[in-house]
Amino acid sequence: MDIDEFDATIRAVPDGGVTSAAGFVAEGVHAGFRAHPDRLDMAMVVAEQPVPAAGVFTTNRFCAAPVTVSREHLGGQGYGLARALVVNSGNANAATGEQGLAVARETCEIASQVLGCEVEQVLVASTGVIGQQLDIAPFERGIPQACDALSRAGGARAARAIMTTDTHPKEYAVAYESRDLTYAGCTFTVGGMVKGSGMIMPNMATMICCITTDAPVAPKTLHTLLADVVSDTFNKVTVDSDTSTNDTCVLFASGAAAMGAPLIAEDTDAYEELARALHIVCEALARGIAADGEGATKLVTVNVMGAASDEDADIAARAVANSPLVKTAIAGHDCNWGRVAGALGKSGAAFDQRNVSIDIMDIPVCRAGLAVPFDEDEALRRFEAPEIIISADLGAGDGSATIWTCDLTHDYVRINGDYRS
Amino acid sequence: MDIDEFDATIRAVPDGGVTSAAGFVAEGVHAGFRAHPDRLDMAMVVAEQPVPAAGVFTTNRFCAAPVTVSREHLGGQGYGLARALVVNSGNANAATGEQGLAVARETCEIASQVLGCEVEQVLVASTGVIGQQLDIAPFERGIPQACDALSRAGGARAARAIMTTDTHPKEYAVAYESRDLTYAGCTFTVGGMVKGSGMIMPNMATMICCITTDAPVAPKTLHTLLADVVSDTFNKVTVDSDTSTNDTCVLFASGAAAMGAPLIAEDTDAYEELARALHIVCEALARGIAADGEGATKLVTVNVMGAASDEDADIAARAVANSPLVKTAIAGHDCNWGRVAGALGKSGAAFDQRNVSIDIMDIPVCRAGLAVPFDEDEALRRFEAPEIIISADLGAGDGSATIWTCDLTHDYVRINGDYRS
Repeated sequence: MDIDEFDATIRAVPDGGVTSAAGFVAEGVHAGFRAHPDRLDMAMVVAEQPVPAAGVFTTNRFCAAPVTVSREHLGGQGYGLARALVVNSGNANAATGEQGLAVARETCEIASQVLGCEVEQVLVASTGVIGQQLDIAPFERGIPQACDALSRAGGARAARAIMTTDTHPKEYAVAYESRDLTYAGCTFTVGGMVKGSGMIMPNMATMICCITTDAPVAPKTLHTLLADVVSDTFNKVTVDSDTSTNDTCVLFASGAAAMGAPLIAEDTDAYEELARALHIVCEALARGIAADGEGATKLVTVNVMGAASDEDADIAARAVANSPLVKTAIAGHDCNWGRVAGALGKSGAAFDQRNVSIDIMDIPVCRAGLAVPFDEDEALRRFEAPEIIISADLGAGDGSATIWTCDLTHDYVRINGDYRS
Repeated sequence: MDIDEFDATIRAVPDGGVTSAAGFVAEGVHAGFRAHPDRLDMAMVVAEQPVPAAGVFTTNRFCAAPVTVSREHLGGQGYGLARALVVNSGNANAATGEQGLAVARETCEIASQVLGCEVEQVLVASTGVIGQQLDIAPFERGIPQACDALSRAGGARAARAIMTTDTHPKEYAVAYESRDLTYAGCTFTVGGMVKGSGMIMPNMATMICCITTDAPVAPKTLHTLLADVVSDTFNKVTVDSDTSTNDTCVLFASGAAAMGAPLIAEDTDAYEELARALHIVCEALARGIAADGEGATKLVTVNVMGAASDEDADIAARAVANSPLVKTAIAGHDCNWGRVAGALGKSGAAFDQRNVSIDIMDIPVCRAGLAVPFDEDEALRRFEAPEIIISADLGAGDGSATIWTCDLTHDYVRINGDYRS
């Protein structure tokens, strides 16, 4: 299958999100984790019946209780059948020990009773302050309330309920007609919602993502698909290099768009199509996280090519994206390629500085490791754009990588430096 | 030898610096790298004759021309005989290609002619903006002018001339009577100057350090000594995780305090004494760099113990010290141990969160991975101190490490985000 040709047929779903795919409903409510009664603070995404589901989770050793419980419910392998995801904001339920695990399990218990499913078919995620015990009472109120109101329109409220210092909800969905003859006439949809880097009291950056599709996929295949796509999308985002205790990304597949059709197997056109659609959704959501990073005024895309390997390209691009000197320069609209060079050089990626080229906003600023004179006024004009693109060619091989980040502004320091009270 | 007992006999030299050790003179002048005539911008440190010298340099692949030339002059191994170090501020001579190398070599040539020594006996270092060609003319004026004025009192002016956005010069020296019978009656002095993280136009953080001693040491031994001490002192400092293109640390040993005595060999008490004295000087200068980091209001010391290995301790301590979330919290006087836990957890160091203890300013805030209630008012009071100490025990072994850093403030963003003009 020609992916470029296929791409042209994938279309964004207007106002699409986590309930765009057939077979899913959602709702966001004020359960009481936060003080203000207008602030939505609990979301549920529910499949009409137990469906294949897969999850990938934080690697942080201080992983939160809901991460431990969701992992268990997905059989430790990261895939299984699931019916629902419950997310609260305002408290991360991290560094809360046995008590925190008990609350996460009880959350699933409540949801399973209300929905009439197995407790293992409920997944849970939390975001907010670390090290404070999470109260079960808001779930006791919020879960029945959310379940009563579940609808496709509730997806937008769910996306809002999982926000912390995010400035706006982040949702995206795409749809496509399958070109695989097995699924002739089927239109598949992939959509999701994500919350990005932020904290309410300030505490930890956390990513929580829920994606749904109505394509028919077995749990294990779904996990393979998710893990592959996450490594090329969400794992390429860095706002401040701090990996959260709570990062969670789950994918549900209802199969509702091709009832009775066989499950999509690996190495088929249908799999490739779905992987591509999932990639587009995850990339849109990942870019959304970077652009809405705390205090961010710019989305920053760092492309490294010509590296000795893809790993080297990733290391080099990440060093640029995490450099406070690069990020503050972008905040200051300073086309400061010396800092990019410095970050590439310290990254550990193998290259000879005499072979390095750097472009910023398509302006050649460095060739063969040396400065190229450029029009600073033109550079300033191009820095008005909402997305700043830095591209470096290391001249050392064929490896490439893209990392998304944001600039580092006074607001980042303000949001995270103001005393919690 | 009992190091603790020995430590008690080491004394700080009042107003000590790079010329405290016998056999060294220095000067700082305005050569013309910077516009303002009152701003010292070129320093020389000169031994009365060629003496053993050792250097350690940046590992950044975009290493600057003076680093390449100084490495060559120390025979590629990092040690040899040297007479002088010439440092300019205002221009890093980095990413300047063959032309930059020619300027660095010509600088050494000029100094060797004025001093009457071999060109290879001159070392050179630069700090300032990257990617601009360095003019030789200021050296042609400044080197003769500095050489005419060389004196022991000139050390203070040299320390000032190497500054960029440092807010004050950083000098330190210690003296001690040797307890090694071979050097009975000898008083050895170790002193140095350093510039820390800062940039004039803003560009790259750069560390340039020159240390002198009047102890008699062979070049190769001197290099072993320097490399060991640097790895435990300067290499444990991180202001913003950006390793410079120009980092340079050189150590000269005149032997003037023990003329005619044998060279100090490894595995002797005299070596151990000198290593300890050098460690104390480098630690004082390293802490000075961290405390004077760009925009810093606090020195931050991160101690990790109980790690599976010293390497793990270093990784974990560095993750905490580089975490923007931890650094902004300290700027906000927020005793936010959840961010410390998050940084430890993402570091990659091996541990079980249930065994982790964290203290901030001697306040137990986390035990067995769980929150310990603490008096927030008392914590706020302790955050008034100029040095914030974070200690974590991972409960995973005997490894330990200390990393120094500073807080992340609005001033860091201002200094590095303002447009270069």
